[in-house]
Amino acid sequence: MQAKKGTHYSAAETGALRDLDQQAHPHPKLGPIRGKLFLQNLLGLTAMEVSLNKMGPGGSLPFFHRHREHEELYIFVGGKGQFYIDDEVIEVREGTVIRVAPEGARTWRNNSTEPLYYLCVQAAAGTVKGDATSDGMGVDKPVVWRDST
Amino acid sequence: MQAKKGTHYSAAETGALRDLDQQAHPHPKLGPIRGKLFLQNLLGLTAMEVSLNKMGPGGSLPFFHRHREHEELYIFVGGKGQFYIDDEVIEVREGTVIRVAPEGARTWRNNSTEPLYYLCVQAAAGTVKGDATSDGMGVDKPVVWRDST
Repeated sequence: MQAKKGTHYSAAETGALRDLDQQAHPHPKLGPIRGKLFLQNLLGLTAMEVSLNKMGPGGSLPFFHRHREHEELYIFVGGKGQFYIDDEVIEVREGTVIRVAPEGARTWRNNSTEPLYYLCVQAAAGTVKGDATSDGMGVDKPVVWRDST
Repeated sequence: MQAKKGTHYSAAETGALRDLDQQAHPHPKLGPIRGKLFLQNLLGLTAMEVSLNKMGPGGSLPFFHRHREHEELYIFVGGKGQFYIDDEVIEVREGTVIRVAPEGARTWRNNSTEPLYYLCVQAAAGTVKGDATSDGMGVDKPVVWRDST
């Protein structure tokens, strides 16, 4: 899979979420993890690491992990499962969003009979200031739509 | 909508993506934007701002914008549309992912007859070092699953 790159962007087609199990992430300790696609290297991201994930029925992460400096956000977009954070178990499904501080010990599983779909974003804790729109600026350029080239 | 908060996490149920148009973001200049839900304040995120979005057929952002310090990542998870970055128009659909540098002038639209679903993540450019797994650490604690409480 390759990205198309321009001056201020890079873009890629990762395919439908249901086909994510055609991907395998070469984890340095666990070996290939099927259904996991990381975007940082693909797109040249400098502010975050992001993975797109499809976990099959019965699947799980077999260990707890925490992070050194990164906050994580898990966004569940399909299926059902459970998320374990410190001493608490949370049911997850489409629309469940979970922020985890670096120190939190976390793992998760798909205890259902359908695939579990989620995204995970990690970025350096404490680096964002302001609200949703304060970093944005309008650009004085009319929007004239046309076909792609 | 309220988050449940623990020592190292916060979690919320945002509902199914197809129901996102029941949400409206109170934009300071544009007024309410239907179908957009921001997560930073909801979850107390410190590393990123994230929005979940449903844009109806014919919908568009009526202006170009750029950012001061934030890189953005757009992840399209359903429907079809177009993304305009500087002088280039890119077709988008489920699985299209686009990184945009702060300087890029960007806008997008749904030129289809079905809803367009996407996530947008913004975080401070240049703050992530290392690869996907280098920030993680295993935790020496056995995983024993149980029901949620």
